[in-house]
Amino acid sequence: MKAEILAIGSELLGPLRAETNSLWLTERLLDAGIEVAVRTTLADDLRLLESAFRVALARADVVVATGGLGPTADDLTREAAAAAAGCLLRRDPSIVEALRARFARYGRVMSPTNEKQADVLEGATALPNARGTAPGQMLEHEGRLLFLLPGPPGEMKPMFDEQVLPLLRARAGETRVVRRRVLRIASMPESEVDEIAAPVYSRFENPKTTILGAVGQVELHLVAHGDGALDADSRIEELAVALRAALPGRIFAEDGRDLPAVVVGLLRERGLTLALAESCTGGLLSARITDVPGASAVLERAFVTYSNRAKVEETGVPPALLEVHGAVSEEVAAALAAGAMRAAHGDVGVGITGIAGPDGGTDEKPVGLVFVAIDGPMGKRVRRSVFPGGRERVRFQATQVALEMLRRGLLGLPPL
Amino acid sequence: MKAEILAIGSELLGPLRAETNSLWLTERLLDAGIEVAVRTTLADDLRLLESAFRVALARADVVVATGGLGPTADDLTREAAAAAAGCLLRRDPSIVEALRARFARYGRVMSPTNEKQADVLEGATALPNARGTAPGQMLEHEGRLLFLLPGPPGEMKPMFDEQVLPLLRARAGETRVVRRRVLRIASMPESEVDEIAAPVYSRFENPKTTILGAVGQVELHLVAHGDGALDADSRIEELAVALRAALPGRIFAEDGRDLPAVVVGLLRERGLTLALAESCTGGLLSARITDVPGASAVLERAFVTYSNRAKVEETGVPPALLEVHGAVSEEVAAALAAGAMRAAHGDVGVGITGIAGPDGGTDEKPVGLVFVAIDGPMGKRVRRSVFPGGRERVRFQATQVALEMLRRGLLGLPPL
Repeated sequence: MKAEILAIGSELLGPLRAETNSLWLTERLLDAGIEVAVRTTLADDLRLLESAFRVALARADVVVATGGLGPTADDLTREAAAAAAGCLLRRDPSIVEALRARFARYGRVMSPTNEKQADVLEGATALPNARGTAPGQMLEHEGRLLFLLPGPPGEMKPMFDEQVLPLLRARAGETRVVRRRVLRIASMPESEVDEIAAPVYSRFENPKTTILGAVGQVELHLVAHGDGALDADSRIEELAVALRAALPGRIFAEDGRDLPAVVVGLLRERGLTLALAESCTGGLLSARITDVPGASAVLERAFVTYSNRAKVEETGVPPALLEVHGAVSEEVAAALAAGAMRAAHGDVGVGITGIAGPDGGTDEKPVGLVFVAIDGPMGKRVRRSVFPGGRERVRFQATQVALEMLRRGLLGLPPL
Repeated sequence: MKAEILAIGSELLGPLRAETNSLWLTERLLDAGIEVAVRTTLADDLRLLESAFRVALARADVVVATGGLGPTADDLTREAAAAAAGCLLRRDPSIVEALRARFARYGRVMSPTNEKQADVLEGATALPNARGTAPGQMLEHEGRLLFLLPGPPGEMKPMFDEQVLPLLRARAGETRVVRRRVLRIASMPESEVDEIAAPVYSRFENPKTTILGAVGQVELHLVAHGDGALDADSRIEELAVALRAALPGRIFAEDGRDLPAVVVGLLRERGLTLALAESCTGGLLSARITDVPGASAVLERAFVTYSNRAKVEETGVPPALLEVHGAVSEEVAAALAAGAMRAAHGDVGVGITGIAGPDGGTDEKPVGLVFVAIDGPMGKRVRRSVFPGGRERVRFQATQVALEMLRRGLLGLPPL
């Protein structure tokens, strides 16, 4: 089953205004085994709304609309849905009565404009709204299900959970279960990952796979539908096994952890401590590692050695090395890693030196050039990279490479 | 003129995944006098996308699509837009060349799948993308304007501002000028800011003011419409003057700079260098400061002194102080600031020590307790805070307080 969500209201299209009902509904529908293919936010305009309902009813199994059920002139959801479904609206006297009683309960007299909230699409079922005035509506239309729900989250959410969801679960077949898993890969371009992964995941109709590239990281999102948890889980696992084989040693997490958490976990398991000397990343690697709860067990101290003097004084980099090779060099990166390890009494050392930009690049050593070195029980490893993007991206990618080098070293995998 | 925005990508329809490009575009289009009538988020499905483009091109003056321009099999925006507009795609050899050159610059060979990023709609103009691989496209189609923009915000936003917006402004014949200014305030709760600011800004109909709270920071967004730049500018300035008077010394930027950039600027102007000793923030303050281009002129080195041993060895904190007061104390924060200054030969020192959580709190010293000290020409200042929120928020707020203390000290303002 596929669903579409329509969020209705011109106020949702103003500046600085996120539309949150749709996000909430997306998650609820996914949990019920129903994928959301389209989410639309629409201004209060009758023709626009009518065409949106028409399009949605022509292609989705379930259409969920929120908003536009109030009493004012720009509440047009009922009229638009009726026109799109080709049916009439009729005023339900029992709802008019209930509205009047609600107003009376709060000691107010209902103005006539409120009566339009009792207009129900011909053939539709009204969904009572204990928390507000406008009832929701459910219509079966040529094999599709249309729900009109109020816009205020405090009314919409309980109506969905209590009245809509049970119905949808029954429709979707109560035993269908959705399982999702995210496979994460560091420091490998999205296009390279996809070239390897696509031939594998495209053999599978279920699970469905989406590839998502971020700075220094690629994610493969697997979503499986199954008859029961066991079936869905084994479908996910079957594809995960195939992807692991296609990308040997490259998937660093399948359990939602980020790369720093994985590396901290590996160091803790091995009882190893880490020492850092960062130049161009300026403390970002240290900050990312110490963002992991419990990082104090592996990181005792770190140095931000921005200047040459700091490199010499804190991590014992020989001044001659700086003179001969320059601060941004393989040799200095290695000396930083070894020096940090020594100065901080650590088991594993990391040294990073590079040109984050925007200035300071030359033809020989361009902006984005970074050397990362690790040192310790896995031996000495140095990697040269040239990262695209601005200062922030260069720095982040440098920390990502350092973490991936550590992970591979700690797991005994060959160098990146 | 009316616009529609299409945000494309199945990953945008996953759970808990907000779609932010559309919000940003809405604001920019509104500034240019163009209302957004529909905003749609769409899964990567060729038929779905084609129908969405067809519908949008039939009713909107401007259609802006983001995403789906990458090299992978599920990047279908080009194909779908071409089908909806009834035109062919042709591969542009000069774009293929540019792509190849870009890959070569980073020492990589371009895989053939990347070539499809050079496919341009017949009759469309390619929009160069200096920050990524996929160029954008602009097509005039039966009196309507269609823009295809890349999905990554770092590529989409500058392309829109530099290439799309000038064109749209000209089209809209916008003589009304919009000016916006953002006033930023650090380490003050949103409710406190609003209690003071609301009586001021609510006296103004134009500019309109929106208050936006983030972790450790509050922003006042002022938007003025005017007949010409002079009129709009003077409207903004009139309100800004009133807000500055109501919040004396609290507004740290009106020019878009973040707090680290402001502090680095103040230190540079004064020719002062900075030395840091971070415990619970673990390098985050150093990382934020070195994210500012040119930070090397003020930050020579920094210490992450996570363990007590590191505090003693690197910054000379007397062991007796740690024993008597504990590592998380006013006294140790002050000693860290003074010690960092001494060890790094800096003019201004900062010391941070606290309990970031999730564990390690006691009744007397709860999670979120942080002491920040500064030392230097402005004298010694120490501040005790207890921050709400998880580990990440506590750490960020601690760096924010340190930066605001530095700013106030450097400007000769009274302590926070």
